[in-house]
Amino acid sequence: MHTPLPVAIDALDLFGTAVFAMTGALRAMSKRLDLMGAIVLAVVTALGGGMMRDALIGRHPPAAFVDQSYLLIAIAVGVFTFFWGKRVREQESWLIAFDAIGLGVFTLVGAWIADEAGLAPVGILFIAMLTATGGGALRAMLVSEIPFILKKEIYASASLLGALCYLLMRYLQADASLMIWSVIIITSGMRLIAWRCNIHLPRA
Amino acid sequence: MHTPLPVAIDALDLFGTAVFAMTGALRAMSKRLDLMGAIVLAVVTALGGGMMRDALIGRHPPAAFVDQSYLLIAIAVGVFTFFWGKRVREQESWLIAFDAIGLGVFTLVGAWIADEAGLAPVGILFIAMLTATGGGALRAMLVSEIPFILKKEIYASASLLGALCYLLMRYLQADASLMIWSVIIITSGMRLIAWRCNIHLPRA
Amino acid sequence: MHTPLPVAIDALDLFGTAVFAMTGALRAMSKRLDLMGAIVLAVVTALGGGMMRDALIGRHPPAAFVDQSYLLIAIAVGVFTFFWGKRVREQESWLIAFDAIGLGVFTLVGAWIADEAGLAPVGILFIAMLTATGGGALRAMLVSEIPFILKKEIYASASLLGALCYLLMRYLQADASLMIWSVIIITSGMRLIAWRCNIHLPRA
Repeated sequence: MHTPLPVAIDALDLFGTAVFAMTGALRAMSKRLDLMGAIVLAVVTALGGGMMRDALIGRHPPAAFVDQSYLLIAIAVGVFTFFWGKRVREQESWLIAFDAIGLGVFTLVGAWIADEAGLAPVGILFIAMLTATGGGALRAMLVSEIPFILKKEIYASASLLGALCYLLMRYLQADASLMIWSVIIITSGMRLIAWRCNIHLPRA
Repeated sequence: MHTPLPVAIDALDLFGTAVFAMTGALRAMSKRLDLMGAIVLAVVTALGGGMMRDALIGRHPPAAFVDQSYLLIAIAVGVFTFFWGKRVREQESWLIAFDAIGLGVFTLVGAWIADEAGLAPVGILFIAMLTATGGGALRAMLVSEIPFILKKEIYASASLLGALCYLLMRYLQADASLMIWSVIIITSGMRLIAWRCNIHLPRA
Repeated sequence: MHTPLPVAIDALDLFGTAVFAMTGALRAMSKRLDLMGAIVLAVVTALGGGMMRDALIGRHPPAAFVDQSYLLIAIAVGVFTFFWGKRVREQESWLIAFDAIGLGVFTLVGAWIADEAGLAPVGILFIAMLTATGGGALRAMLVSEIPFILKKEIYASASLLGALCYLLMRYLQADASLMIWSVIIITSGMRLIAWRCNIHLPRA
């Protein structure tokens, strides 16, 4: 069943990498860090989740060190955002929408890779969420903030829902394209709906 | 010499997982995080140390992704604590006692696995302590606190003492049961005595 | 081309480990942590970068668990600094100079190991910087500070420059000795010049 991911997903994966890198660089700028700080946070946000995934499941060396596109894109976006992105605010609607797409794609890619590695269903859920939210969590730890996944309205939850959708589709032996697109659409859609409608989980 | 750990230890390992998960969820609640935040901190606290261990020594995929019991228990305890644990305070005596047992069991399991992986003695000490205290340290980093291991009266030190006991028993070629129980009892006992008697290491 | 690193580099590597351990212990002391806190921060600062490197590229078990010298030196320096280093301030000139040497050696060792592991050029840059600055970043996350690499005048940038020098020398098929010493001298020199002359990257 595990054919390689279609080319469209590779393209979306690079797109997600670029968007996550931009959110990292913007955070560095709002913290008044220097150019290297922007590049470091861009790279950590964009690639940190995938690297933790690869270190855990034993994918050596991690994809990001073999195919250089990911690191190069993250670095380039970090530099570009630092010099030309001063007017972009972290709350722009288009940025949140793009970020939601990145969340969906990374959830799918994480679930797919975890599945290929032969993990049990709960392991697939964990790795999918780690891939999608781990980079942002690392970024937050580096700048001493509490990460989104712990406090933001429906962020990790959207990724979890997407990963559950993956497991369901897999159980139903759905067609690969259907599986792929529904995971992305459900994750991204859930994130956007929660953001627009300001939906929260119950709070302690 | 390395027979599998006895079933009683597997049961205690699950017990330690549940207790650590509860401390994670309680911390989330005292920080006013939402349900997903409680689940994330429960999982990170309970499984973070073991996952870092497995990534370092190359146990792929980590046990937690193959045997689903650990992740499922951590998630269940996170949810349960969030909804029904509102009156449990993080300083309850029974919780500290249970946590001390978890510290002891995780120290033993970490030392055992590091030994099986063929590490040198100092590596065994390191991995035993990482297994027992790494999850709590990750939790603290996620909520921007300084971890227990850095400031609490005898916590990492109790784990170190237990791991030293492991090395001693191994050197003396002690019986496996004797080794197992003495590591757990020394670690947990030291932690509890230090807590009751308010014993500290010298401070800078 | 990959002959083992010369013995002089092994000695410098141990020297760098000791210096990084001292900076970790001093940070613990300025935070008023106890003896175990000083040891933990000494070990994390000295070995954290190399351990993250080994977990990512799949060097199992990490060198630090096989050759015990590194862990033992870091622990010994932590204890020694805690008891006899009370008058050493973190800003002493000699400490910053020694730290710059450690930064250079760790950058070289990281690049060398990444190269041996067959990583692509951008992966070599990443791993060299992670080896040199990852321990300090972990230390900062543990004590809830923003790491040097994100805010200090030319720190990660010096490591990046050294790693770029490595790639250039490699491309030119330079002699191994020339490559080794120029990476160390350029990294350490850049760090020291930036410190003395107070050179910064542009800030957001």
